[in-house]
Amino acid sequence: MKFYDCLTAPSPRRVRMFLAEKGIEIETVQIDLRNKEQLSEAFLAINPRGTVPALALDDGTVLCDGASIMRYLEEIYPEPPMLGATAVEKALVAEWTARVEFEGFMATAEAFRNSSKAFKDAALTGPVAHAQIPELAERGRKRVADCFAVLDERLQKSAFLAGDNFTAADIAAFVFVEFSAWIKLVPEDSQTALKAWRDAVAARPSAAV
Amino acid sequence: MKFYDCLTAPSPRRVRMFLAEKGIEIETVQIDLRNKEQLSEAFLAINPRGTVPALALDDGTVLCDGASIMRYLEEIYPEPPMLGATAVEKALVAEWTARVEFEGFMATAEAFRNSSKAFKDAALTGPVAHAQIPELAERGRKRVADCFAVLDERLQKSAFLAGDNFTAADIAAFVFVEFSAWIKLVPEDSQTALKAWRDAVAARPSAAV
Repeated sequence: MKFYDCLTAPSPRRVRMFLAEKGIEIETVQIDLRNKEQLSEAFLAINPRGTVPALALDDGTVLCDGASIMRYLEEIYPEPPMLGATAVEKALVAEWTARVEFEGFMATAEAFRNSSKAFKDAALTGPVAHAQIPELAERGRKRVADCFAVLDERLQKSAFLAGDNFTAADIAAFVFVEFSAWIKLVPEDSQTALKAWRDAVAARPSAAV
Repeated sequence: MKFYDCLTAPSPRRVRMFLAEKGIEIETVQIDLRNKEQLSEAFLAINPRGTVPALALDDGTVLCDGASIMRYLEEIYPEPPMLGATAVEKALVAEWTARVEFEGFMATAEAFRNSSKAFKDAALTGPVAHAQIPELAERGRKRVADCFAVLDERLQKSAFLAGDNFTAADIAAFVFVEFSAWIKLVPEDSQTALKAWRDAVAARPSAAV
């Protein structure tokens, strides 16, 4: 297997943390997003989507999405389970991952990519040009704050998002919170459960990779 | 278990098709989205997200997202597998589901909800008001066309999205294609693989539920 990564980007960071939690080491290639290497002819021949993370399997299949990469790794390296152990936990990992992606991560990405000069005509990932939409940047910032509140409420009642165990849903949420700092949004002082959880996740060795 | 559904909406339709493919019958409650019943006090007490589908489990847990509901049902009713049988197939189901949701379904939803008068200040699902953004409607239409091309290319090489078997990724894509007709976007005549696949899926009994 070969893992296509970018140390400066949030989406591949989720996979790096997932690998570290499982103690898996894979040959890794860095793709330089700052110089648009993901849109180079060489990389598009590997992943026509023009995105990282990607994982090339030994049978020639290339997985081009964090969701598929984490599912594959969970199947072949089941311990420790990062996508849930019981039926309910598996469901809650799926639920919180989906919520964090849609209500959180995407909101931060919209705020960031629709306001930063570096992303002019690149408001969405991939090879197709899309103009920035300033209202989407503004809406994104509001939604990030709403998502922080949702996470704080959940974490007041539960040690981790899917219950008692640290899972890929927590990785998704942690990377979302860290990504939001890029647009200078951080949890409120009053969101004590979210902040305590964030500090605990930040102390895990996987957060340093 | 109790399933909260809405016969006129695309997201719960994915769960209905999933249930039908597995031959599962569950007590079902219709939530009238056209009259905003999903935002009623009674329904928000069940699902504070204010969205359908939702699935109330017998232990009191309420699953509030199609992803979590389908994952739970796959665990407790594994046959026939709808989220993949092998590690690679499971990964490809996750991959194509994620792609269809982000590149397709969300694009149609953005085009629809940001242009229809009925969704003024309801450009996103849930209880928080969000103003419509006309540029997002326009961008959505372009992205739907791009997603049709991606699906057609895949289906030229593969009977179904994740390989030889009909899976939840095909359900996601079929419901996306049907949803796109609401905004008068349909596959091009030249997209023969996509059209043949669509017609084959439409002929399955699960497409009628």
